[in-house]
Amino acid sequence: MKILGIDGSGLVASVAVVEDDNLIAEYTTGYKKTHSQTLLPMLDEVQKMVELDLNSIDAIAVAAGPGSFTGLRIASATAKGLGLSLGCPLVSVPTVDALAFNMWGNSGVICPILDARRGQVYTGLYRFTDDGQFQVVKEQCALDFSQIAEEINKIGSDVTFLGDGVPVFKDKIAELIKVPYRFAPAHLNRQHAASVATLGSIYYANGDCEPAADHRPEYLRLSQAERERMEKEGKS
Amino acid sequence: MKILGIDGSGLVASVAVVEDDNLIAEYTTGYKKTHSQTLLPMLDEVQKMVELDLNSIDAIAVAAGPGSFTGLRIASATAKGLGLSLGCPLVSVPTVDALAFNMWGNSGVICPILDARRGQVYTGLYRFTDDGQFQVVKEQCALDFSQIAEEINKIGSDVTFLGDGVPVFKDKIAELIKVPYRFAPAHLNRQHAASVATLGSIYYANGDCEPAADHRPEYLRLSQAERERMEKEGKS
Repeated sequence: MKILGIDGSGLVASVAVVEDDNLIAEYTTGYKKTHSQTLLPMLDEVQKMVELDLNSIDAIAVAAGPGSFTGLRIASATAKGLGLSLGCPLVSVPTVDALAFNMWGNSGVICPILDARRGQVYTGLYRFTDDGQFQVVKEQCALDFSQIAEEINKIGSDVTFLGDGVPVFKDKIAELIKVPYRFAPAHLNRQHAASVATLGSIYYANGDCEPAADHRPEYLRLSQAERERMEKEGKS
Repeated sequence: MKILGIDGSGLVASVAVVEDDNLIAEYTTGYKKTHSQTLLPMLDEVQKMVELDLNSIDAIAVAAGPGSFTGLRIASATAKGLGLSLGCPLVSVPTVDALAFNMWGNSGVICPILDARRGQVYTGLYRFTDDGQFQVVKEQCALDFSQIAEEINKIGSDVTFLGDGVPVFKDKIAELIKVPYRFAPAHLNRQHAASVATLGSIYYANGDCEPAADHRPEYLRLSQAERERMEKEGKS
């Protein structure tokens, strides 16, 4: 099957096309432009370079959140628009799962951390079995860093950190993590649409997809506007 | 430091820009076009998308072989031309090392295999230490597949295979490999210039670079023309 992957959940914009065991194309940028300036132009560029017939796409996998609210909306809107026009289903890949999948085959525990501001991280815990199967140890969630640190210490395995939370929480990691830890290097430490597409094709094979019209990003937290309204209305 | 990575050693064409711990851009295609139609246009596209000033590049890492002779020549010529015009050094990254580096942090032994035709593979053996250091267990070389299989069985660890030799040698792997083995998935199983650049920056930090004018690809074997001449001259 041929699957298009899209990730706009962070600073990174990334698109990829994966067909079975082959990466046909991936284009990834980590640059200060907004995703409305990057995602579609990048897909257009890839489409021309590999003479891709968009109608040959079987499904679209999108990093569905959490992450930057605006980035998620642009990526989801792009995926929905393409899915509706091409008549193909969407696979919502949890952002943190896709990041962990960058580290395919790693020993120990994988802990992606995305900076969720206000002292929190979007995170989750993952492992790979000896035969390369992906296991979700703790589903993605928004937590104070100290809470995920406690869970990592309790598990007791070596841990690999990645994601844009790493530079932000480096001191906290040194202070709180009591097991051996390491940081993923540059080529693997941020979002890659090829991971979204490859993991998405596994989820798709498990029946995990939805009509494009039904897709919604998963923010995991309230937006600042919603939070402020609730505070004003005395609900929080 | 900012390093440009280029890989044209196989069907894949890939360019990437890495600055310290950040992947600024990567563009990878695995498509039947020749690298003279892809590498420079892809770099040009990336340069525009991330507003890259080529003069800010400190070094150019190139997958220096083995691989497709024509692909290596195009990638090396591109790297040399850029290095000469920008006045920056080249880092020759062994192709098989860079492929193994895709699998950063994996447990067990990493064995990239590239189809070298005539029953042979370009291969090597690698490991990562618990703290993520890259170890070359066996330097890249051209071998009959049965020879590398014997070495893998002797080591006795689990092994991960990747590279374009995997589909070609799948039956041989099933027949000859006596340890548990697995195959890297689509997002990691072929050349990535981000791996070339990230590993290249480690080699560069170890003083492993050369003036652009001195760079030559490493073919590891004679070309067909050279081989046939030697046979004709009775030297083989």
